[in-house]
This record gives sequence, structure tokens and C-alpha cells, in this order.
Amino acid sequence: MPSTRAVRAETTEYTKDRILRVAAELFMRQGYSGTSVREIGQRAGISQSALYHHIQSKAHLLKALHQQFIVEMIDRLETVVDTDRSAPEKLRDIVGVVMSIIESHQPEVTVFLREQHALPPAMRRSIVRQRDRVDQLVDRVIRDGMAAGELRSDVDVRLIRLGILGMCNWAYQWFRSGERFSSEEIAAAFGVIAIEGIVEPEPRGR
Amino acid sequence: MPSTRAVRAETTEYTKDRILRVAAELFMRQGYSGTSVREIGQRAGISQSALYHHIQSKAHLLKALHQQFIVEMIDRLETVVDTDRSAPEKLRDIVGVVMSIIESHQPEVTVFLREQHALPPAMRRSIVRQRDRVDQLVDRVIRDGMAAGELRSDVDVRLIRLGILGMCNWAYQWFRSGERFSSEEIAAAFGVIAIEGIVEPEPRGR
Repeated sequence: MPSTRAVRAETTEYTKDRILRVAAELFMRQGYSGTSVREIGQRAGISQSALYHHIQSKAHLLKALHQQFIVEMIDRLETVVDTDRSAPEKLRDIVGVVMSIIESHQPEVTVFLREQHALPPAMRRSIVRQRDRVDQLVDRVIRDGMAAGELRSDVDVRLIRLGILGMCNWAYQWFRSGERFSSEEIAAAFGVIAIEGIVEPEPRGR
Repeated sequence: MPSTRAVRAETTEYTKDRILRVAAELFMRQGYSGTSVREIGQRAGISQSALYHHIQSKAHLLKALHQQFIVEMIDRLETVVDTDRSAPEKLRDIVGVVMSIIESHQPEVTVFLREQHALPPAMRRSIVRQRDRVDQLVDRVIRDGMAAGELRSDVDVRLIRLGILGMCNWAYQWFRSGERFSSEEIAAAFGVIAIEGIVEPEPRGR
């Protein structure tokens, strides 16, 4: 039998998940600034005091929604970067990771991308650090690929990263899981559209 | 000398522009649902009754912000599509048009992309028709390019369009006019990243 403490920890986790789910749903429907913490508590069936036990403020909720996908994304991108694959292959894998995260965390991603500008500066900074980590990982793949002669080096590294990630990120606007294309099909197409153009063709003097 | 009616029409235009500028600024800073029509009027220095003479509701304001860039975008895209250039060249021109619109209408584009989900369904439908027009224009270029053997035809037309436009649209999140890259430099890089990969290489049997 699980200990009382384990049960309590599990209940706490469950309650926090429920609060986050309700928050994502309300932020999605009526906007971050149009939703009160009181409303989130009521909808989640939790008293105000219990709610504040789990979250410190509405901004913390938005940050927690970001955590739900960024931690997994960084973790999976680090795994991709650490493989022995070529730079074009790694970039295709990166596209696959981002599309799969957008698929599995659609409400959190949507709400976060719409509403991140509403976060207080200090909180935004900690989030920017995580996004910088994503950027560094992708930039490293592009730079290594250029150095190895696998990628064209006449296009700016940052614009390549912004282009590839932008193509994927924008999918939060139109991609719905279970509709016409799977995230794998989209990733495969985007791999052609965004990556083939920057791959150095084999013949060019190597 | 201009007629009284012309002066009045000009003043009305000026007042409406001012209301739209204030609305874009407030929606940008505090969100659409966090901004009241009263606040917009106060900030624009216009009485409530005068304000309602110019706009019917807050949703109409958001729609008007969309009009400010979508009409120009459709117009310029139609011009691109009607030229005799090749499909890859037209796609590069399309990227150029979208980036230049994002540059010249940054606040309106940003606010619209963040807040469009807040529009009432009937209003959203009329906006969807305009966006459909953009999609049709781009799809036509891609289809014609495939038929002419200028573009790879093993990637879905819709995913190519979503990829190319997504890469550009996402720039509303990071592109600031006057910073490191000009919209022309970005368009040139995106032309390579997003389009070279789908161009049929000359040698392949033609």
C-alpha cells in the first residue's frame, strides 16, 4: 500500500495538473487578461486558499504551462544533438521533435505563444533563458553542419534557425491532432521544404 | 481650397486612424480582453459618443486592424501572381511581400495574430475569406510550378504553403524594424531556406 505521504504527493500533483488544465482551457477561450484566478479555482472546484497553496499568482500559472512543454523539448533536443547523425539529419529530427511537442501539448503551446507578452519581466527572463537554450542547441547543429561542409554557409545561422523553428512553431495556429496530416507527415514535408535548400549538394568539391 | 465635406472626410479619416493606432497600442500592451472601449476613447481624447460614431464595437476595431494590412497584402500578392516570372521567383516575391507587410504593419499584425481567436464567429468568417484568398494565390503559384516542372511535386501543396507562410508569419514574434536584419535580408535568406529545397534541379530530365 502506498504511504500517506505518497498518496498526498500524488493528490497534490493531480490537483496541480487539474488547475493547469482548467487554466489552459480558460486562457484559450477568454484570454489571459480576461480570466481571473477566482474563476480558475471555481471551475477546478478548489477553494481560493487551496488554490493559492498550489500557485502563487496567475502569472505563475502561465509560466507553469510553459514548463509543461519546454522542459521536455529541451531534453529531447539535447538527445538529438548528442547523436552521431549528420547536420541535415539532426535538423530533420529537430523538426520532428518540435512538431511532436506541438501535437502533444497543443493547448499549453497555444496559450503560451499568445500570452507570453503578458508575463512580468522577471518571469519572462527565466523563460527567455530556456528558449535561449533551444536556440543554442539548434545553432550548434547548424554551425557544426557548416563547418563539416554539410550545410551551405552563405546563409546566416540565426536566420536559418528562425526560419526552421518558425515554420514549425507557426503550426500552433493551424495544426490539429487527428486531422488531415499527422505530425510525422508534417515534419517530413517541412524537412524537405526547410532543410533541402540549405544542404550542400554532394558534388560541390568534396 | 478643399470643400467643407472634403475637410470633414479627412478629419474623420484622421480620427479613425488615431483610434486604430491607440487601440493597437493598448491591445498590444494589455491584451484585447484587458482593454475597454472607454479606455481607448479616453486615450485617443475622444468622447464615447464620438467614438461610437467611428466604430461599432471593440471587435470591429480588431477587424479594422486586420483590414489595415490584409487588403494591401492581397493586392500585392495578386500583382506578384500575375507576372510572367517562374514559380520559384514568384514564391521568393511572395516571401518578400509578406516580410515587408510585417515590417510596415508590425503592431497591427502582432495584435491581430495574438487576438484573432477573440473575434465573434460571424466576423471571423469574413476574415477567413480574406485569408483564404491569400492561400489560394499562393497555392496557385505552387500548383502551376509543379505542373510546369519547376517545383517538386512529391510534397503536399498545402504543406508547402503553410511552411513558407509560417516561416514568414512567425517573424512577427522576433522581427523588429531597424534591428540587425532588414526585411529584405530576411526575405532573401528565407527564399533560400524555404524555396531552394522544393525547386526541381535543372538536370532532372528536362
